[in-house]
Amino acid sequence: MKFRDPIQTAIELDRADPLAGFRSAFVIGNPDRIYLDGNSLGRLPVQTRQRLHDLIDFEWGEHQVEAWKDWIGLPNRLGAKIAKLVGGGADEVLVCDSTSVNLYKLTMAALTLRPNRNTILTSSDNFPSDVYLLQGCGKETGRKVQICEPEDVLAQITEDVAIVSLTHCAFKTGRLYDMQRVTERAHECGALVLWDLSHSVGSVPLDLNKNGVDLAVGCTYKYLNGGPGSPAFLYARHGLQEKLTNPIWGWFGQKNPFGFSLEYESAAGLQRFMTGTPPILSMAAIEGGVDLILEAGMDALREKSIRQTEFLVDLWQDHLEVLGVTLNSPTDPASRGSHVSLGHPHAYQIDQALIKEMNVIPDFRTPDNIRFGVTPLYTTFWEIAEAVLRMRRVIESRSYTAYANEFSSVT
Amino acid sequence: MKFRDPIQTAIELDRADPLAGFRSAFVIGNPDRIYLDGNSLGRLPVQTRQRLHDLIDFEWGEHQVEAWKDWIGLPNRLGAKIAKLVGGGADEVLVCDSTSVNLYKLTMAALTLRPNRNTILTSSDNFPSDVYLLQGCGKETGRKVQICEPEDVLAQITEDVAIVSLTHCAFKTGRLYDMQRVTERAHECGALVLWDLSHSVGSVPLDLNKNGVDLAVGCTYKYLNGGPGSPAFLYARHGLQEKLTNPIWGWFGQKNPFGFSLEYESAAGLQRFMTGTPPILSMAAIEGGVDLILEAGMDALREKSIRQTEFLVDLWQDHLEVLGVTLNSPTDPASRGSHVSLGHPHAYQIDQALIKEMNVIPDFRTPDNIRFGVTPLYTTFWEIAEAVLRMRRVIESRSYTAYANEFSSVT
Repeated sequence: MKFRDPIQTAIELDRADPLAGFRSAFVIGNPDRIYLDGNSLGRLPVQTRQRLHDLIDFEWGEHQVEAWKDWIGLPNRLGAKIAKLVGGGADEVLVCDSTSVNLYKLTMAALTLRPNRNTILTSSDNFPSDVYLLQGCGKETGRKVQICEPEDVLAQITEDVAIVSLTHCAFKTGRLYDMQRVTERAHECGALVLWDLSHSVGSVPLDLNKNGVDLAVGCTYKYLNGGPGSPAFLYARHGLQEKLTNPIWGWFGQKNPFGFSLEYESAAGLQRFMTGTPPILSMAAIEGGVDLILEAGMDALREKSIRQTEFLVDLWQDHLEVLGVTLNSPTDPASRGSHVSLGHPHAYQIDQALIKEMNVIPDFRTPDNIRFGVTPLYTTFWEIAEAVLRMRRVIESRSYTAYANEFSSVT
Repeated sequence: MKFRDPIQTAIELDRADPLAGFRSAFVIGNPDRIYLDGNSLGRLPVQTRQRLHDLIDFEWGEHQVEAWKDWIGLPNRLGAKIAKLVGGGADEVLVCDSTSVNLYKLTMAALTLRPNRNTILTSSDNFPSDVYLLQGCGKETGRKVQICEPEDVLAQITEDVAIVSLTHCAFKTGRLYDMQRVTERAHECGALVLWDLSHSVGSVPLDLNKNGVDLAVGCTYKYLNGGPGSPAFLYARHGLQEKLTNPIWGWFGQKNPFGFSLEYESAAGLQRFMTGTPPILSMAAIEGGVDLILEAGMDALREKSIRQTEFLVDLWQDHLEVLGVTLNSPTDPASRGSHVSLGHPHAYQIDQALIKEMNVIPDFRTPDNIRFGVTPLYTTFWEIAEAVLRMRRVIESRSYTAYANEFSSVT
């Protein structure tokens, strides 16, 4: 037993937490509802709520088309802010479209720079949508998509690999790749690297420039708290941007969109990766959450995130391991993002019981992962302790057996 | 002089208008501000304002990820509603991504069905972004994009044409193509047709099924009043859907998105054209406006739209023609959508003076078009009369000469 009284320990840890004040910057609702799915959809920042009301009521409602004067700069302004979180230059990040569409644009653009290489390399812990995307690009360009095990990535990078495309923080386990080492190895072999940062941006410090990363994408609705389906970002390093062609040509990526010429001429720099008119409500929702992270500082957030995931792992060891719950995430916090996956043969049922009986909101990922997302901006130590104890109650009482194991047929 | 007192005539027409009550379903703001740019960005419906506040404050704010249960069905539910406006089946329309990205997906998919044809045919009055898109697809697939004059379209459809891609209602002039005739001619030659309905959906009755249209796209922020940059829709007819492959593979177009298998398997029907996670705030904003149009009825709206654009043309003749203003839209209302373009050598300056001095909001399109968008759901006859008289004042007083002719260098 590491902690004699987990709740009391948690309360003390919360009291001493220098970031505790940030919780009040979010809409919380029912304080007994323990939300541990910020790695899927982040909470609503209070300032975002206000910004959206103003945008709807006054900008759209009363200024209508005139408000485009301000809206038009959003993809670049947000890009410059996110650049600070990923270690890129202000003009190396752009917000537009979805993660998948951005992945398509960058992958297709990158493949034209490696015309004689026939392999796109990815790993089995990549987010499936990314793998589908690569398979589509492979089909369209006549290339093979090789899916290797995470531990084999370095060995599988050969002279035939055009692109190495990986998710930096694995969605099921929270496992982190060594970005620098993979990028270096890819470059030694002449391959380009494309990182998906969806689960790492806002949860772990990143330095794309320092690591020499070529390309990256990421979503904004997880740790950045940008709202449901908020647009994604893309990154392309200086030196590479001018060599890349966006396959999806549209007026927002044209040199002079309002000149209305009938010949496409690509905009300079990263702007060329814009295509159509961006969804402004969903895009404007991103800024408040990013501002809060910049204010708190990524190093302080990471420090708290590690203390919180370690606290969770300790409590798992004290209370859940004996009940047959496994730790599906790395034990070393340096190899782990900000979510922790706990495994159980009845994981889907337990997840349902936690949500429906216990007011605890994790999520389930096939085949046996219950993901607890820790978002240090608003997650408290008390919530973590409560969640573990409530999960223990669900398993001990076997109340989860009331729920169908819907996912059992999925392999 | 057709009308002795335009303002008095307008007031009488407004009083007799059976759709007049719909204006109160929109946020109006300053009643002296004459907004005639609903063909660029529609006004905010009151019910959309409420829906968005609820979505932000309660669904995202308090239910967070649990609200996805409702959000997930939006692309299809909205698609089924828009299908009623375009004359398609409920499962023939889907809301997702931007118009440009949807155009890309459908064009690339269609081209694979016509592998031995080398021409993509479009016209010089197409929206430039659509032309860019086609040029990108042409480059990627080694095909030629032929841009012909609008009146030559029928003659230019040959056995070498893979796709005819046109905007049904031209953005500069409001000119309408004969959808049935072009579609028939394309089919005679074995080509597929893809219509962009951005300026016609919600402004003119459409019947894609009856006209045998293969493919269509359109935006939702103009006459549908879906808000800035709201996601677009795409249409593919029954019988064609199963033959088409979306080039941008993503989890929302996968057969079983939450099965997380690592092999892409396309969803059945139109669902395959989804890619990434949709931007929910911008997507949910679409429903209120579409509901209002369905309630008013497209035939009634078209009837009012014609009466209003005819009123505008009559007033132009009475007050503006003598001042050197040209009518750049068709005179026959059957060949015209719901916006009217007036031309003048100093159009850009006049547009600026109208906005800055006269509280009239049209828009400018190069080289010499001032577009007056009529949205029968909320535009009044009084606004049309006032706008014409205010424009007359701007030209007579030459107050527009105070503004730089910024667009003069654009050809």
